[in-house]
Amino acid sequence: MADAANPADGQAKQPPRLIALDWGTTSLRAWLLGDGGTVIDSAAFPWGIMAVPDGDFAKALATVTGPWTQHHEALPMLASGMVGSAQGWREIPYVDCPAGVDELVAALKRQLAFGIPLPIVPGVTIGGAFPDVMRGEEAQIAGALELIPALHAHARLVLPGTHSKWVTVRDGAIVAFTTSITGELFAVLSKHSILGRPALAAGKTTPDPNPTPESWAAFEQGVAAIRDNPSRGLGSLLFSARTLVLTHRMPPEVSLDYLSGLLIGDELRNALAEQPRQDTATLALIGERALCQHYVRALALFGVAEPPVIASAAVAGLWRIAEAAALVSPRWSPPP
Amino acid sequence: MADAANPADGQAKQPPRLIALDWGTTSLRAWLLGDGGTVIDSAAFPWGIMAVPDGDFAKALATVTGPWTQHHEALPMLASGMVGSAQGWREIPYVDCPAGVDELVAALKRQLAFGIPLPIVPGVTIGGAFPDVMRGEEAQIAGALELIPALHAHARLVLPGTHSKWVTVRDGAIVAFTTSITGELFAVLSKHSILGRPALAAGKTTPDPNPTPESWAAFEQGVAAIRDNPSRGLGSLLFSARTLVLTHRMPPEVSLDYLSGLLIGDELRNALAEQPRQDTATLALIGERALCQHYVRALALFGVAEPPVIASAAVAGLWRIAEAAALVSPRWSPPP
Repeated sequence: MADAANPADGQAKQPPRLIALDWGTTSLRAWLLGDGGTVIDSAAFPWGIMAVPDGDFAKALATVTGPWTQHHEALPMLASGMVGSAQGWREIPYVDCPAGVDELVAALKRQLAFGIPLPIVPGVTIGGAFPDVMRGEEAQIAGALELIPALHAHARLVLPGTHSKWVTVRDGAIVAFTTSITGELFAVLSKHSILGRPALAAGKTTPDPNPTPESWAAFEQGVAAIRDNPSRGLGSLLFSARTLVLTHRMPPEVSLDYLSGLLIGDELRNALAEQPRQDTATLALIGERALCQHYVRALALFGVAEPPVIASAAVAGLWRIAEAAALVSPRWSPPP
Repeated sequence: MADAANPADGQAKQPPRLIALDWGTTSLRAWLLGDGGTVIDSAAFPWGIMAVPDGDFAKALATVTGPWTQHHEALPMLASGMVGSAQGWREIPYVDCPAGVDELVAALKRQLAFGIPLPIVPGVTIGGAFPDVMRGEEAQIAGALELIPALHAHARLVLPGTHSKWVTVRDGAIVAFTTSITGELFAVLSKHSILGRPALAAGKTTPDPNPTPESWAAFEQGVAAIRDNPSRGLGSLLFSARTLVLTHRMPPEVSLDYLSGLLIGDELRNALAEQPRQDTATLALIGERALCQHYVRALALFGVAEPPVIASAAVAGLWRIAEAAALVSPRWSPPP
C-alpha cells in the first residue's frame, strides 16, 4: 500500500496534513498527503460507489483511512467524484460554469463520517439545449492547472474515459465542456454486440494494454476511416469492424483495436470540428497513460501536435482545493 | 397457424406449390404458398439460427413443414436469410453487386433436407474500402420490386432493423448498399449502458409499441437534436439522453424514445447526406410497420415526403425467386 520504500520512515519525517479521496463509480483511490501535497502513502480499492461493501460508505472510509487516522484523529479529509452524486454517499449540488477553484470551494458540502466532517467537492454543470455534467474531473482539472501553469489562461483539456470530457478553461475556470460516451460505447459494443464476436472467438476481449505494431496499425486504420469519410456516420462505419474480418481483410485479433480507433476517431472528428478556428487554446490530455497514448496517436492523424499528458492530476487538484478551503492551513481545526 | 378462416377448405381448393422460409438470426418464418404466391398457410417459430433446438436444422425444418409436407412429399422449398451464413445450416457464398433476381438464382445452393433439396438464396456483398454484406434483405428487395413495380428502374430502399440497410436499386438489381447498426446500438445502449437506467428505473425497458403523444414528442426531439447540430457527433449527443433526465427536463419514461430518435436521426443524417443531389431514386421503406412508422416521422423532420411502407416483402420475393429458378413451374422436379 505504501508508495515510499520505507513508509514508516516517511511518516516519521513528514507530518500528514490531508487524506485526499478520489471516489468514483468503479474505484476508490486515497492518498495520505504531507506539506505541499507530497504523497506519503496511497491506497486503492475496487470500492466504487456501486460496489461499496454493504453499501456502508462510512465503514469503507474507515477501512481505507484506518491505518492513517489511528494516530491522527483530526486529520482533515477531502473527497471528489461520484461519491457526491445521487447514487453516492451524499448528493452535492453541481456548481454552474464558469467554475474555478473558488467556486468549487464555496460549494463544498460536508458529510459527517465517524464524527469527522468529510468535505466533498461538487461536480460542475453547464446548461443549454444539451445540459452536461461532470463529477471528479473538476478536481483533476484543478490539479492539471497546478502542474502546468501555462494551461491557466486558455486551455482545452481532454479527459478520455468511459465518459470522455472536452473542457475549455479560461482564466483558471471551467467555462464550457461536452461529454462523449466513447469508452462506454466501446465497452457495450465489444461485450454485447456482434462487433465484439470475432475478437472474442480469437480469445481477445480487450485491446492489448501493450499494443503490438499490428494492434496500432488496426487502431490507426479505424481513426483514418473516420477522418477520411466525413459523410459517413459512426453507425455506418461501425459495421466495417465486422465486415473487414468477415471478408478476411482484418485478423480478428485486432478488430477491437480497429473498433477503438473508429470510436476515438469519431470523438476527435467532432470535437475538433467544434473548435473555433483561430482558437489559441493549449491542448492537454489528462488520464491514464495507455489510454492517453491512443489519443496522442489519433490526434496526430488529425494533424494535431503531441499534447502534454498529465497522468495523476486528481491528487494535485484535491490538495489545491484543500488549500483554497483552508483545510490544510496551520489554522485549520475541525468545525464543530 | 392458419391464415385462412378454414385452411382445410383453402388447401383443398388451392394446390400448394412452394414452402417459403425466411430463416434469420432470431426467428424462422414459413409460408405455404399456392399459385401466384398466394399464402395458404403460415407459421413462425423463435428458432433463429442461434436458437435452433439442439442445433438440428433438419429436425427444426421437419417440425415446421411437417403439417404441410405429409401429403406433398415433393413440395419444393426455398429459404433465405442467415440460414445461409457461416453460423447457419450451410454457408452459401455471397454474390457481388450488381445483384438482381437472375444473379441470385444463378448462385442458389441446395442443402439436402431429409432427401429433399432445400435451395438457399445467397446473400449479397459489395467490396471497396468498407465491404458490406446482406443476407435475407435481397429476398425482401426482390419482393418489394414485385409489389411496387415503380421501384424497379431506380430506387433507394431502406430496411430498418438491427442492422439497417440503405440499398440502391437500378434496373431491378441491387447496385450499392450500406449498413448502419442502428438497432443493435439501441439494444446494447438501452440494456447495458447508463443511458438505459432512467427508463429502467421508471419500469420501461423498451419504447412503447403504441407510442403515446409524449413518446412521439421525445422521439422527434431526439431526431431534431441530430438534425439541428450537424457539428455534434453521435457520441456527444448520446449523453444528453442521460443529462436531460438528470436535470429534470425529460421524464425518464420517454428517455428511450429520445435515445431511439437520436440513433435513427443519426442514421438518416448520414444516409441522406450521402445521397447525391438531383438523385431521382424513389424512396421506400421495407419492414415491420411500427418501426417503419418511426422512420416515416423522422424522415418528415428531414423534409422527406412520406415514402411507401412495404410490410411483408419476403414472401413475395421468395415466390419471385422460386419462379425465376423454375422451382414452381409445372416442369419443376427435384434435382437428383
